[in-house]
Order: sequence, then structure tokens, then C-alpha cells
Amino acid sequence: MDWILREQGFDKERIAANGNKFMIGNGYMGYRGTMEEFTREELTATTLAGLYDRVDGKWREPVNAPNGLFTRLEWEGTPLGVLTGGAGAGAGVELLEHEQQLDIRRAVHRRRTVFRVPSGAAEERRVTLTAERFCSAERLNLLAAKLTVQSSADGELVIRTGIDGEVWDINGPHLEGLAGREAEGSLLLAGMTRELKVPVAVAETASFNVGEQVVSTTSGSPIREIRIPCRAGETYTIYKYAAVFTGLDGTGDAGEAALRLSREAAGLGYESLLKEHAAKWEEKWSRADVVIEGDEEAQLALRYSLYQLLIIAPEHSEKLSIPARGLSGQVYKGAVFWDTEMFMLPFFLYTQPETARNLMMYRIHTLDGARRKAAEYGYEGAFYAWESQETGDDACTLFNVNDVFTGRPMRTYFRDKQVHISADVAYGIWQYYSFTGDDSILLNGGAETVWECAKFFYSYAYFNPGKQRYEILDVTGPDEYHERVNNNAFTNALVKRALYIALEAMDFLRANDPEQYETLVKRSAIQPEQVRDLHDRLYVPQPDAKTKLIEQFDRYYTLEDVPLPELKSRVLNKNEYWGGGNGLATTTQILKQADVVLMLHLFQNHYDRETKKANWEYYEPRTEHGSSLSSCIYALVAADIGSSEWAYPYFLRTATIDLTGDSKQYVGDLYIGGTHPAANGGAWMAAVLGFAGISFDGSTVSIKPSMPHKWQAVELPLILRGQSFKVRVMPTGVVVEAGADNNEAVAFKLGTHEVQVAPGEKAQVDL
Amino acid sequence: MDWILREQGFDKERIAANGNKFMIGNGYMGYRGTMEEFTREELTATTLAGLYDRVDGKWREPVNAPNGLFTRLEWEGTPLGVLTGGAGAGAGVELLEHEQQLDIRRAVHRRRTVFRVPSGAAEERRVTLTAERFCSAERLNLLAAKLTVQSSADGELVIRTGIDGEVWDINGPHLEGLAGREAEGSLLLAGMTRELKVPVAVAETASFNVGEQVVSTTSGSPIREIRIPCRAGETYTIYKYAAVFTGLDGTGDAGEAALRLSREAAGLGYESLLKEHAAKWEEKWSRADVVIEGDEEAQLALRYSLYQLLIIAPEHSEKLSIPARGLSGQVYKGAVFWDTEMFMLPFFLYTQPETARNLMMYRIHTLDGARRKAAEYGYEGAFYAWESQETGDDACTLFNVNDVFTGRPMRTYFRDKQVHISADVAYGIWQYYSFTGDDSILLNGGAETVWECAKFFYSYAYFNPGKQRYEILDVTGPDEYHERVNNNAFTNALVKRALYIALEAMDFLRANDPEQYETLVKRSAIQPEQVRDLHDRLYVPQPDAKTKLIEQFDRYYTLEDVPLPELKSRVLNKNEYWGGGNGLATTTQILKQADVVLMLHLFQNHYDRETKKANWEYYEPRTEHGSSLSSCIYALVAADIGSSEWAYPYFLRTATIDLTGDSKQYVGDLYIGGTHPAANGGAWMAAVLGFAGISFDGSTVSIKPSMPHKWQAVELPLILRGQSFKVRVMPTGVVVEAGADNNEAVAFKLGTHEVQVAPGEKAQVDL
Repeated sequence: MDWILREQGFDKERIAANGNKFMIGNGYMGYRGTMEEFTREELTATTLAGLYDRVDGKWREPVNAPNGLFTRLEWEGTPLGVLTGGAGAGAGVELLEHEQQLDIRRAVHRRRTVFRVPSGAAEERRVTLTAERFCSAERLNLLAAKLTVQSSADGELVIRTGIDGEVWDINGPHLEGLAGREAEGSLLLAGMTRELKVPVAVAETASFNVGEQVVSTTSGSPIREIRIPCRAGETYTIYKYAAVFTGLDGTGDAGEAALRLSREAAGLGYESLLKEHAAKWEEKWSRADVVIEGDEEAQLALRYSLYQLLIIAPEHSEKLSIPARGLSGQVYKGAVFWDTEMFMLPFFLYTQPETARNLMMYRIHTLDGARRKAAEYGYEGAFYAWESQETGDDACTLFNVNDVFTGRPMRTYFRDKQVHISADVAYGIWQYYSFTGDDSILLNGGAETVWECAKFFYSYAYFNPGKQRYEILDVTGPDEYHERVNNNAFTNALVKRALYIALEAMDFLRANDPEQYETLVKRSAIQPEQVRDLHDRLYVPQPDAKTKLIEQFDRYYTLEDVPLPELKSRVLNKNEYWGGGNGLATTTQILKQADVVLMLHLFQNHYDRETKKANWEYYEPRTEHGSSLSSCIYALVAADIGSSEWAYPYFLRTATIDLTGDSKQYVGDLYIGGTHPAANGGAWMAAVLGFAGISFDGSTVSIKPSMPHKWQAVELPLILRGQSFKVRVMPTGVVVEAGADNNEAVAFKLGTHEVQVAPGEKAQVDL
Repeated sequence: MDWILREQGFDKERIAANGNKFMIGNGYMGYRGTMEEFTREELTATTLAGLYDRVDGKWREPVNAPNGLFTRLEWEGTPLGVLTGGAGAGAGVELLEHEQQLDIRRAVHRRRTVFRVPSGAAEERRVTLTAERFCSAERLNLLAAKLTVQSSADGELVIRTGIDGEVWDINGPHLEGLAGREAEGSLLLAGMTRELKVPVAVAETASFNVGEQVVSTTSGSPIREIRIPCRAGETYTIYKYAAVFTGLDGTGDAGEAALRLSREAAGLGYESLLKEHAAKWEEKWSRADVVIEGDEEAQLALRYSLYQLLIIAPEHSEKLSIPARGLSGQVYKGAVFWDTEMFMLPFFLYTQPETARNLMMYRIHTLDGARRKAAEYGYEGAFYAWESQETGDDACTLFNVNDVFTGRPMRTYFRDKQVHISADVAYGIWQYYSFTGDDSILLNGGAETVWECAKFFYSYAYFNPGKQRYEILDVTGPDEYHERVNNNAFTNALVKRALYIALEAMDFLRANDPEQYETLVKRSAIQPEQVRDLHDRLYVPQPDAKTKLIEQFDRYYTLEDVPLPELKSRVLNKNEYWGGGNGLATTTQILKQADVVLMLHLFQNHYDRETKKANWEYYEPRTEHGSSLSSCIYALVAADIGSSEWAYPYFLRTATIDLTGDSKQYVGDLYIGGTHPAANGGAWMAAVLGFAGISFDGSTVSIKPSMPHKWQAVELPLILRGQSFKVRVMPTGVVVEAGADNNEAVAFKLGTHEVQVAPGEKAQVDL
């Protein structure tokens, strides 16, 4: 199969979408799929993971570094660029050919553009530009690029290349004191963030074999001007090595570090850097790739989804997690949501447990922020941020959407009522521990974290004296169109699980670190037996004995049961928000996204097929899928109940979200575009956990395939409790191969067949 | 002082306001202050107490009876009427003089209009019409009217008078099968309500001494045409006796009953009927009037407020209460709100305990409706209707206001979250019992009612395990701009009081009707000791130790503390609703009406002056007074803390609300005009409980005057525990005279002086 995305021609309308679609990155930074000649107008951004800034009291957002790959051409005094007719390209310039490519196997971006340039002569004169770039997987601070120019006639070519200090910002600019300079042939642009004064520096070294160079610094952007007396048919090549460092890197002076790396890279040379980068990516894919036989469309979409996850995975740091829009820009404040635990974590758990650990350690490191949030609301323990940045303090405001009818900010209850976030965190930590057996996470803050989450829920819960049960009141569940509901089934079920986890973790701690256990218990107003009582008597909405339906929350059934198309016909403004106080969906049964159905996925072993089927069928027509988190869950549960044909369109919708780029761009007047890592993770879940039917409960791997008709096989690697496997799932059977280097057998349940797969062994079962 | 309201001239814009201002009534029906020639376009209505109807699935509302007083003049073929130039009066007719009068001492409405009529002659020709009417206080089904006509020249006068079947309706017409006929000189128009098929009949007998009569029935309205060959200077008089009966009157055939009464009245004659009516009113005033010496404006306003209460008081039936807009029309569905218990009941308790009993018996009779509402929401006991009609089922919808920006119905939480209503009812019943000592009300359903209310609260309340207390969550307090709040101070305090009342009432029942007690306890899942536990451990927000402030509800202080004028500057549409999901006030500290301050009034003995003052000062600038229930409470508490000068403007605003008619007319696009009995009752409260400083705790009458500067004395009658008193309160002292027919002494605390006032005795204390 082809691993290369291609898009021919240039469409101005696709600039924003292609910036996401053709993104490259390495977990340290993301570099948008913009053209070399683009500026902030076209949303150029080098988004830095984990570095946030606030300007003028506006909301905090991640910092985009200066653009070290900026390059513009001029042919005989006429600017060349895809944005013809404007500032980008002079009059008379015409785009003859243009192609943008993304090699997802090696995470390399390419473009090739052929310009017709003005000419007094009879024959057509052409200038061809190619550019290739990658964000090094080996050297995380490095961006490298190679440009070539060729023309069909002699003439003077001017290349302006350097560091553009003016990049896309929503609430920026974020760097103050930006100063550019030349340093022995290299360029350097350095400044510091406004709020926390964190230094940010970009250095660039260029290498080229012809032409003369003049460096100028315009409005804080050091740009090198290279004049090339061009000869027809000759190819002129320029290599750029841009290094990005910040004060968070711990490397001393960021500018010095950037200059050092950029020069070191230039010394090693582009091809050599590309080679080590490609080797890294080969390794990444060897642990991640899922081969689908019989469905090229699904294959590409799924691989592309995994690509998106791989370019943003924080493999290198346990202080980072993955923002809801990845590293595609500043949308959603670059904040980390429950998306990570619920939609991305599984992929990493099964394939890159060390990255999964980083993601969970991020939550442990931000425990204090969660404690502050709980205290702010008068609760005990840890109430995790709905929108988490580097400290764990909540970046979410109380007013998230503007009313399109009045222009007024609208009070929404994401920050203060979506309490399931603390249960999501506990669930994630426990998943990591179960999958890996790595109890170091519990000893190093994990147990404390889940205990603090349980304390939060104890202080949040109420006891209903008439019904003699605890309830979780006044919450917003995953279905954000219904705020402030009581006993949301998903939330209650997950809270109960979180309480169980906390009790287990505390038992573990008592046995394995009694001192820490004593400290936690002693300084707590809430004792384990109280948490146990809450766990034992917590109300979780159950399936109706007859219909098997689970009510999404108290009195959900009393809401207007309007068909979705009818609700859509009531829309007055296409950007109007359906939730909130007066939202169209608020008083109806229409949901934003899987809610009960998500619970049925998370607790798939607690509910029988009949219950899953009844609820899927009830809630599916009532779901708007206003969230990119919704479709994959419907796919998963449909596959779970053996309805892979119902699941397939939902899978495809999830897997292609960043390929088509046609997901929701606005809520109210808030721009929410960007990539969708949760959907990317959801695509993997749907394919692997859904269609291939793989699940791991911490001791046994169960495989019950439920494959779409045309899928002949799914083949993928797994790492479970430190043991690696190669799994091939077919409608007719399953083959499992244990890595030769494994050090223990793992139990597999293939269909109804149970088998221990020892190191180096192979198990094969017909279904 | 003058007891007559007068308005000179005619202003079309004042038709709706004057319909309310000049209303007459007798508790059985209200007749709007419209002109004789008016039709439904000018909101003619004879609003019947306690008879409701639904048409076409729209909301239920009270039935307006056909207009038995309809009369139109025609002079020489030209119609005469105040609406000159339109259908009301022909071309060339001019209004020379017009005056509308209301004699509030005798509840008689008058008008006098002088028309210039077209004339070929040189001299001006005038026709003078006078009309007088009253709604008999002695014969509740009777309306009587006297009309006179005089002209300055000879000519033919045609008088069309009869019963107009087309009256003002919001959701009507409500009567089907309307058939009019003549019956031996009388007219009859009868039909029945659409929903419950209740017969409604109006009969009219007219008496006049000249002219010939022709009766015609046009579109269901029997109208008599009288032709009078008019002589200049002569006065022609017509008397009309209109009787209104419905199937609820228990008089057999409504038409027959109406004809009978109308003829009987004609037989007795207008002057005789007026005399017995006036006598009744003299008696009413003897028990109600409050004389204010030194302030004519206040005197008129207060008397007018009492007039409004007296014309709608259901003296004759314990199945009726007083709707929020009295009998002024169909606004607010003719429904009974908490207004009755909290704002009107005190006036009746102190002056007409038998009417107070009727009001409370209405709640007891509607207990089953309250039980149904509780069951509908899954609660125990009795959850009283927010908008109560004849059955006690809730007429309040979930969507009370339309969003002016989108035209969409807006979800509001009056019906399901204003749970304090059940506490208001319990409080009212107990007030009645305390004031009168009449324990029959407890034995005949009162104890059961308050017990059912307590059961409701037990099932509604939650226990906070961390704080070891019960809380009342998710309510809307009196301040409706803040819906769905937790631990609203007012609500929690009143619920605690209601629980106390229920426990006391059950103790009473156990001692006095053990069988009933056993039955109530046996059939209840909730036992008295559980209610006691809830009472004892219920959280009621307390004054801060330092600031003395009581937080209106949990986290109220975290809301935006915006000055009211600034909030007003954000208004985009003058009719926009400030509450609800996205309302302007919702996310701010701005309140619709007294909330904490109302609590400080109800429980005035529980809080010290410092606390009352601090809270008054904090909440007053934050109160929009978007409800007519607000001002009187600020007046009361200001008087209570000795700041009568702060209180006075609020008193005046309350007392003049129906005189000026410039209160809020729209919420969203919902018309809410009409009279304001709660404000009328509030005016009495402010004057008597506030300025005169009278309060009765069931055993002792305390009098601590706090009078406005210019008030020299307030004199009024009181009836307490069956004993009547005349009280004169001056800044310098208090005089109490006990009725000679009293049969026991009552304790008075005058200033700091305690004294027993025995039958026939007089106590006088200097202050």
C-alpha cells in the first residue's frame, strides 16, 4: 500500500485544513502543513508541547515558536508563491503544477510547485520549487528541510530564507524582547514568554553551494537573502537546519543550545539526519502498525490516524500529555482533556506502554492543581482540570461559548460539573497498572492520586435518605448538551469504578509502602471505610428489566423525544450551540455524543449483549455526534454486539476525520479546528478492540473478532505486561506469536479457547 | 379624605391599565374597569373565580363570562362612544368631557361622558351619558348598573343594551354552544365550557320608562334595541340587572338561576340593591380600614390596596384562593401562587380570619393535586403547584417565557424547582392556626397537609456525608433569576420551619385524633422521627460571624458583582428575560426580588438588628425588583431595623402599583399585566407590620412603631384569636381598645411594656 498522502493543485480554502492534515511533529513540537512561503496569515505554527503563555488577560494557550523554515523565492524581481496575485506572488506569475505530499511512513513533508514566470520572450518560462522537511524523531529540537529550485531559463533568483518571528497566534504574540541576529553564518531569534518569562530560541543554519548571502532583520525576523545567478536547467539546493529550544529544556541558554544543535545538524548533513529519523520511524511503525487486508481505504485512514498519534506522543517526557487538538495549534488552549485517558491511552497501552506511563505520570505531576481546584469549590481531594495545562490548574473558563444570537458569553458547565474527569484519571492510572503490572506508578504518586480522586467524590456525593443510597448529583456527563443532570449513568458507573480502584490502590499501598499509606490516611478527613461505604451504596442506573434500557440520567425520558432531523430543522444559525442554558438539544433527548453507550464499552463485561444492543439502538438515532469522540464508541459497541456492518461507517467516519478535514470548525463563534487525536485513538480502538475484538483485563487477552465483511485479516503487534506479540486476526481464526525475547507466558482466550502463549511460541485457533 | 379615584379625559393608551385600576368585584367575579360600549378589543371581562377552561391544548385559564352590562348609544344614527373616529363612535362625534370614577368606599364604578354630536344647526348639540355599576357584595352573582342619557336638543336616541358574548380571552373563546334568547323581556345567554362542560349563563333584565324595545341576537349576543324619542334637557334612565351563574354554583340550571336572580333584582330595584351593597361595604371597611394621619398620598394608596384585596377575597368559599392577578383577567392563568400565603394572608389573618381560613382550606382541598405532582417527580408527600387552579394540579409549564432573540420557548425552573411552595403552604396553615387558635383546621386536613409537605421535603433532601448535615439542593428560591441553586437560605430556613410545623401538628393529632394520626403514620414510608432528624440536622445558611451577611445560596458570592446600572446597560431588548439559562442576571449577583431579606422578615425574631441591617444594605443595591413582591419586603425589613425613611419609598412603590399601572407589562413576549394583590397585601404589611410595628406570635401582640416622619398616627382594627381590637399607633405612644364583646384578655407588648387587655378595656402606653 501507498504510505503517501498527495494533494494536487492549490486551493486557498484548504489552507487551514491542510495545515492540519499535512502536519509533521515529534512530540516535542508540531509543525503545521503550510507552504514554505506562508506567514501567520496562513496559520504557520511550530507548536511547542507543554509551554503555555498568557497575554493581556486572555486565556492561556501554547506558544508557537518562530518559523525556522520560512523561505520565499523571487525570480527576476517577481515574488513566487502559491498565493498568486497577492503578496505571496507577483503579477503575471501562474501556478502550473502544485503538489503537497506527506510520507506518513517516515513523517516527511514534501511539496513541488511549478511556476510560470513573466517573460518577454515567446517561450514559456518555468521555475520549479521542491521542498522536503521533517521534524527529527531522533533530535527532538530539530527541524530539517531541503529545497531545490530549477528554472527553464537563465535569470536571477533571490531566495529569502531565515526565521519568521511572526507566527499564527490566537491570543498572542507570546514572545517579548524578540531579537534576531546573525552568528557566524547562522541565524538566531530569541525572546521570552510574557507571563512566565520562559526563554524561547530558534537558530537556523543554511547550507548552499552558490550565490551570495546578505542577512537582514526585519521586524524581529532574521532573514538571509541569497542571490543566485540561475542557469537554465540547473538545480540549486538549499538545506536548512532549524533548532528550537526553550527554557523548559534544561539545557542552559536556549539560544546557545539552538545554535549548537543547528550547526551540529548542518555538520552531519541532511541525508544523514533523514536516515536516523527514518530509522526511528521504522521502529515506531514496527510497534504500532495495524495491517488491514482487503480494505485499502480503511488501511490508509487507520495508518494516517496512527501517524497523527505518533507525531504528538510525548515519548520523551512524563511532564507532558496530549492536548485535545494535538500539536496542531493553539485551539482548545492546547489543553489536555479526558480525551487522553479515554480515547488515546488504549493505543499506547497496547503498543507503547512507556508512553502510556508518561501520559499517566503527567496526571500525577498535576495532582496539586487538581487539589487546588477541589479546594476552590469546597471539596476534598483532587478535582482534575477539565482543561489541563502544565500545572493542572483548570484552564477551562465558566463561559466557553458565545451566544450567536446576542454575542454574549454563555455560561457552560464543563469546568465545574464534568466531575467524571477525576474518575477518568483514576481509571487511566489503573488501566496502566493492570496492563503493565508496573507498580512503580502506584508507589510514586499513582495510589495517592486515585485516593485523592476518591476523596473528591466522597465530598461531592450525597446520600439519599429516602432511597438509602448515595447519588452523584448535578453533573455534566459526556453528553455535554445536558448539563447539570443527576445520576448520569456513565458518571456514576465510572465513579464507582474509581472508588474501587482507590480502595485497591490503598490496599496495595498498605501492603507495599505502609508508611505512605499511614501518611495518606492520617492527614485525610475521609477514611477508607467511608469510601467503601460510598462504593457499596452508590446508585448506578441499571438496565430496565424489560426493555434493557439504561436511562442516561434522572428524568432523561421525560425530555422531548424529537427526531434528530426535526431538531435540525429548528436551527436558526448554523453555528448556534445546541447545549447550554437555552440550547436546542437541552430540553430534548438528543445527545451530543455517546454517553450510556460509552459506559457499555468501558464496562463491556458487566452488560449482556441484549442490553448493549437495546441501548445502542435507542441512543444511536438520538445522537448528533457533535463531538469527534462519539463515532468510534458507536463503532466499538456495534462491533462488540456482532454488528460490524453497523460499526463500519462509524469507524470510517472516525478514521478519516483529519483526512477529510470536514469536521465541525465552529461552536458559537469559537474556532475549534485542528487535528483530532481522540478520534485517531478511537479509530485504533474501533479497529483493534472492536473489529479484531481484542481486550485485556490485566491477566488474559481475549480475542473475539467481529470484522467488517471485506476485511480478510488484521495484523498487529501488542505489548502486554512487558511481553510482545504479533497477532493476526481473521474471520476464520486467530494466530498469536509471542516474541522470542519474552520472559513469561501470557494467557489468551481465542474465541472460547484458552491458551498460554509462552516466549517464542505460536498459538493458532480456528473460529 | 376622598374615597373616590377620578380620571379625567380619555386616553386610548390607558385602556388596559384602567381596566385594572377601575375594577370592581366581589370575590365571586371581577368586572374590569372598561366603558359600557367596549368590546373584547378593549379587554372587557367578567372574570369568574375558580372556573377554568382549556381550549385547543393551550394553557388553562379562568373563564370570562359574557358581558351583561354591554351598552351602546346611537344619536340620530351616529354611534356615540369614547373611541371616537373608530367603530365606537361615528364621524363628527367629539368628546367634550369624560370622567371615570371609582368609589372605593362602596365599590361603585361611575363614568360621565359628554359628546358633541353632529348637527346642521348653529348651536352645539351635546349628549351626556352617565353610568354607574357595582358588583353586589350581598348577592354575589349580581351586577347592577344605572345609565342616564340627556341631550341638549331633541332627537332620536337608540340604546343597544344586552349581553355581549364576545369577551376578552387570551386562549379562548371558552364557551361553546352559546345561545342567546329573550325570556319574557329578560335576556339570557348560556353556553358551557369546552373542557369540562360546565354551564355558564348570564341573564339580564333591563328596566326603563320610555321607548320601545326590539331584541335581536347577533353572533350569540342577545342585544335589546331601545328607541327613545329624546326631548332636550330630559333625563332618560335605564337600569340593568345582570346575573351570572355557572354549574359550579350548585343552583341547578344556571340559566334559570340567572333569570331568577336578574328578575328578582329588577323587582327590588337598583337603589335598594345599592343600599344593601353599600352596607356590606361599610362592614368590610369597619374591619379593614387603616387610617393614616398626616399623609394623604399614603392614605389613598393604602386604602386602594385594601380595596383591591376586598373585591377579590373569597369570603364565600373555602374552595377558592386569590390568583396572582386577582380577578382582573386571565393573566398568569388565573392561578394561585405563593403570593397568597406570603403576601396576602397576613392582611386577612389580622382582619378577616374567616377569609384566611378559606384561603388555607383551598390548599387542603387541593392536597391531592400536590400529591400527584410529588408522585410525578418521584417524591413522597405533597409538592404544591407553583401555579394552582381548582384541582391543585400544576398549571405551570416547563417553558414559561419565550426568548425574545430566537422566539423559542425557554426552559425555566419555576414548576419543578421552586419547592419552597410546599413550605409556604405549611407556614400559612400554621399561621392561621396560631392566629386564631382554630384547631378545626388541623383536624380537618391541616395536619395531614403539613405532614405531607414534610414528607415531600424528606424525599427531596439529601444528606451530605462529609459535612454530616442535610441539604436542600437544586432549587429556585424567591429570586427567580437564579435557578437551580443549592441551599438557598430562604428555602432552607422555611423548610426547617415547615418540618417543625409538621412535627407539632402531628403531636397535636396524636393527642387529639389518635386514629387519624395512626392512619397517617401507618401508610407513610417516612416516619416522624426521620422528619425530626431532617429538621435537627438541616443546614440553614447562617450570618457570617464578622460581616453578618447570609449568602443567598451556595457560591452566590462567586457570581459577578456587577452594579445594577451596568447590568441594565447590557440589555439588548427591553423585554428580554433576565433569568433562565442565558439571562443577563443569571451569572451575576443581581436578584429579581427580596430573598434573604424576605427570610429576615419571616423570621424576624431569629436575627438581630445588625444582621438585618447588614443584609438589607448588601442585597438592596443588588435587587432589580423585577417582581411586584419585592418592594414591600424591603420596606418591612427597613422599618424593622428602624429605618422608616428607607422603607417609605418602597412602601409607596408597593402601595401605588395598581394606581399608576406602570409595573412590568411583559416578560419576554408574555403579557403579565393585571392587578397585583400580593403588592396590595404587601402595602398593608408594610404599613401595619412595618411602620406600626405590629406582630403577633400566637400569644402576644407586639407593637413597636417605626413610622415615617410625617405620619402622626395609624389607626386600625385587629381580630386576634377571635378577639377584636382597635389600635392607634403614634410615634409617641400606643392605644389599644378591646372590643366589649371580646371573651378573653389578650397580651400586648407595647414597646417594652407588657399588658393584658381584657374585654372592653383600653390600654395606653407612652413610648
